Amino acid sequence: MDSQNNVPAMETTERVMFFDTDAGGVVHNIAYLRFIETNRSFLAEKLGWKLGEMMEVQQCPVVVRTEIDYRRPARLWDRLVVRGQLEKFDRCRFWCAFTITRETDDEKLITCRQMLVVVKLPDMKVIRLPQHWETDFGHLKT
Amino acid sequence: MDSQNNVPAMETTERVMFFDTDAGGVVHNIAYLRFIETNRSFLAEKLGWKLGEMMEVQQCPVVVRTEIDYRRPARLWDRLVVRGQLEKFDRCRFWCAFTITRETDDEKLITCRQMLVVVKLPDMKVIRLPQHWETDFGHLKT
Amino acid sequence: MDSQNNVPAMETTERVMFFDTDAGGVVHNIAYLRFIETNRSFLAEKLGWKLGEMMEVQQCPVVVRTEIDYRRPARLWDRLVVRGQLEKFDRCRFWCAFTITRETDDEKLITCRQMLVVVKLPDMKVIRLPQHWETDFGHLKT
Amino acid sequence: MDSQNNVPAMETTERVMFFDTDAGGVVHNIAYLRFIETNRSFLAEKLGWKLGEMMEVQQCPVVVRTEIDYRRPARLWDRLVVRGQLEKFDRCRFWCAFTITRETDDEKLITCRQMLVVVKLPDMKVIRLPQHWETDFGHLKT
Repeated sequence: MDSQNNVPAMETTERVMFFDTDAGGVVHNIAYLRFIETNRSFLAEKLGWKLGEMMEVQQCPVVVRTEIDYRRPARLWDRLVVRGQLEKFDRCRFWCAFTITRETDDEKLITCRQMLVVVKLPDMKVIRLPQHWETDFGHLKT
Repeated sequence: MDSQNNVPAMETTERVMFFDTDAGGVVHNIAYLRFIETNRSFLAEKLGWKLGEMMEVQQCPVVVRTEIDYRRPARLWDRLVVRGQLEKFDRCRFWCAFTITRETDDEKLITCRQMLVVVKLPDMKVIRLPQHWETDFGHLKT
Repeated sequence: MDSQNNVPAMETTERVMFFDTDAGGVVHNIAYLRFIETNRSFLAEKLGWKLGEMMEVQQCPVVVRTEIDYRRPARLWDRLVVRGQLEKFDRCRFWCAFTITRETDDEKLITCRQMLVVVKLPDMKVIRLPQHWETDFGHLKT
Repeated sequence: MDSQNNVPAMETTERVMFFDTDAGGVVHNIAYLRFIETNRSFLAEKLGWKLGEMMEVQQCPVVVRTEIDYRRPARLWDRLVVRGQLEKFDRCRFWCAFTITRETDDEKLITCRQMLVVVKLPDMKVIRLPQHWETDFGHLKT
């Protein structure tokens, strides 16, 4: 399934810097979550939430659960490809799925799923997902 | 179950700094994983791996999976208590469980589980867990 | 000059974690600035700004310049001692000086100076420093 | 002076993410140093050090001093332009100068200078700069 089948999806790229690595000589496990957040922010923009307007609109998708599997390590200066997509949603929650692969050999390094809700700031009350999702991505409704 | 029942456990504390927070006014979801790594590093020391000797010994526990639930947000200058413990293990893998609570009201903010293996550096080959674990923490063997 | 001579000063300690290091096998240059911020936040509390009240009080010291010298590298699991103090101030600006030493041999690894101003949130207008500073730390006025 | 006058220079861009910001609602002062490191890594590649080969070549430029001025804050989702260039060098040290501007209005937010040396790993002994620099960028020699 991809964006042609109306699954919101996003591809971003990263280059591994020294600040992404640790003394083990590989990318630190926390750094991948920054790569994923960058991808997710562009995916969120596609879904209607622009980070630049969040503070005014006072609506913000927030991660409530992360599951991440570290399969193979990335190394300094590697080019990485992050792919994210909307996986499924219900009334108030949605799941995004991500992979990170190394560009040179397409080796899958990371798989990750995140569950999100949308909150109203500043009290952070969970609100309902936009109703047009049912029309637009009805096949992803659980 | 706790350390009196021979479950390796560790308690660490954190004070929330500006660099832990984001423009949403709360602790950024990635920052909690630093708090958990700090706890896990002291727990690892208890289990026999000293971070200071890892580069010489060339043996290192690495996280292969993280599951983290964000239940309530922490805020700037909060005092947090991180509690970690060995949850279970098999031949080559072990699981640690963590909670992060706010010190003032003992509210549970975060629950997290991480699966780890021990690798031999620099090729990162997975090695067997120390055999004395079966004697020492046999009730945690799966 | 130290706190007995009415120079606000603060000492904090750090233990170097994997997330503080990089593939060069030493602490990444950016990580030291987190150690310094932690020290500075406790120093700021002593000077009258509590991080936990900043969002309500809407007053916040912000760094406008950092100078940092990297003299020797720290390594994984090192215990570090961060010492910070108010160095001098004028009408609207103040300077803090920091050192980071390794606990085992008191080797000086880092020296740092930061210039700060206090801003009124959310428009971030610079405000005058508290007048009692002239009474309390008059010898540091420039 | 620019790259047409044989001054090695590099331009990179950044998009401000949540993890770059803090509870003050602006980009955290430490985050800019990641933006600068990314720029510097590409500039270093131009100067002959490829991050991907550093661990084999065992030669690595390291920052020994940073001076950074925070002039105006960047905000969530801003597009930033980082410009870096070789400023001057002597036998063993070189200086790079950086600016960060906001793309929309070209407002200068950050100016920064870093002094670097090249070290031989793993003992981190400072080595002489490549002799061809005198031929190639002789007008930058101090």
